[in-house]
Amino acid sequence: MDIPKYAIIVAGGKGNRMHSQLPKQFIPLVGKPVLMHTIERFHFADPKIKIVLVLPEHHIKFWKDLVKEHHFEIIHQIAVGGTSRFQSVKNGLETIKEDGLVAIHDGVRPFISKDIINNAYQTAYEKGNAIVTVSLKDSIREVHQNGNDAKDRSKFKLVQTPQTFNLDIIKKAYNTSEKSFFTDDASVAEASGNNINLVDGSYYNIKITTPEDLQIAEIFAKKKWNNS
Amino acid sequence: MDIPKYAIIVAGGKGNRMHSQLPKQFIPLVGKPVLMHTIERFHFADPKIKIVLVLPEHHIKFWKDLVKEHHFEIIHQIAVGGTSRFQSVKNGLETIKEDGLVAIHDGVRPFISKDIINNAYQTAYEKGNAIVTVSLKDSIREVHQNGNDAKDRSKFKLVQTPQTFNLDIIKKAYNTSEKSFFTDDASVAEASGNNINLVDGSYYNIKITTPEDLQIAEIFAKKKWNNS
Repeated sequence: MDIPKYAIIVAGGKGNRMHSQLPKQFIPLVGKPVLMHTIERFHFADPKIKIVLVLPEHHIKFWKDLVKEHHFEIIHQIAVGGTSRFQSVKNGLETIKEDGLVAIHDGVRPFISKDIINNAYQTAYEKGNAIVTVSLKDSIREVHQNGNDAKDRSKFKLVQTPQTFNLDIIKKAYNTSEKSFFTDDASVAEASGNNINLVDGSYYNIKITTPEDLQIAEIFAKKKWNNS
Repeated sequence: MDIPKYAIIVAGGKGNRMHSQLPKQFIPLVGKPVLMHTIERFHFADPKIKIVLVLPEHHIKFWKDLVKEHHFEIIHQIAVGGTSRFQSVKNGLETIKEDGLVAIHDGVRPFISKDIINNAYQTAYEKGNAIVTVSLKDSIREVHQNGNDAKDRSKFKLVQTPQTFNLDIIKKAYNTSEKSFFTDDASVAEASGNNINLVDGSYYNIKITTPEDLQIAEIFAKKKWNNS
């Protein structure tokens, strides 16, 4: 596959759920901000991947200071975030002028493996998109107005990132106004008529959102389970 | 609430997913088998709770040896497990002769909090049953024959345990043959015509199934987050 590959790393979260002043993407994990681990995952999966980091405007200077402090040398472009994840991804996409592939990934998922990243690019190359998902470990119930019902868990998948696309396809999909049901990039692509292709993620690929997630992340980081 | 309270702790798992000879309920966590932590949760939530431990027949002697070795003093009755979770719970229920309430709980969920346990008994006392669930953190997609679709994650709940019932209601529900859609006790109760009441669980209340779960459990156990 000899085609330009991009990764848009979305780091717009303000950390309200962490009970912490420091947004979660900047919290150190084994001595280095979460976001640097995440960027490394893509760089080490393929050093040719061009990285676009989307940050809220008021975090850009803070990030640049962190980069200096940690002597972080992986080249990346910075795009300015918007008022929502949708707008942030849209801003990131607008900075990319080439055709090719783009993996859109949460800045707070630092344990994505090289294999999953590369498999997602390959599937998106072949089929237009690739959405990383995992099976449910627990039973699931659907809540409705008058109660709730058991559902067959084998018919559901939990969605992670990266969500990887042909750039032309995802740019066209994002050329729309934001809808309330746009919870991720797959839902945006789907709304513009694309069939979604699922590829296997991993239970290690956690999104660091809550205090317990951060404790789990420390263990994962120390065990270097992120080196696969 | 002055009514007999039971807990059926189901420990039938054979540990196939752990890549370990030792079934996961017996694996030590900060020096003590997972199952002892789980039993303690119920005992410390209310020492009057009568505990029924369901074990496969070929694990009973091993368990009794562990009890001696660890000087484990919480009184519990042992019931012999069946060939499925359904059959194991049914066997556990058959050992209970009184009316009252019963919480049915996975032996490999050692981080259930006292508050959740007591709230589940209270709700089951008032409404007949109480099923512990948590909201989804990730987007969800439903897989069907011709592809998959985004679903509104706010309409779904992931099911944990305990699943707590009026004993008369759940015994009647279990007085049936096993169906393939019986993935938990709520689905059994639902099939016999009961409306299911959901109560809040916790992301700490993990089910130890995979090797990464065990690593997470070590952290949780060391932090004593299970003391709430």
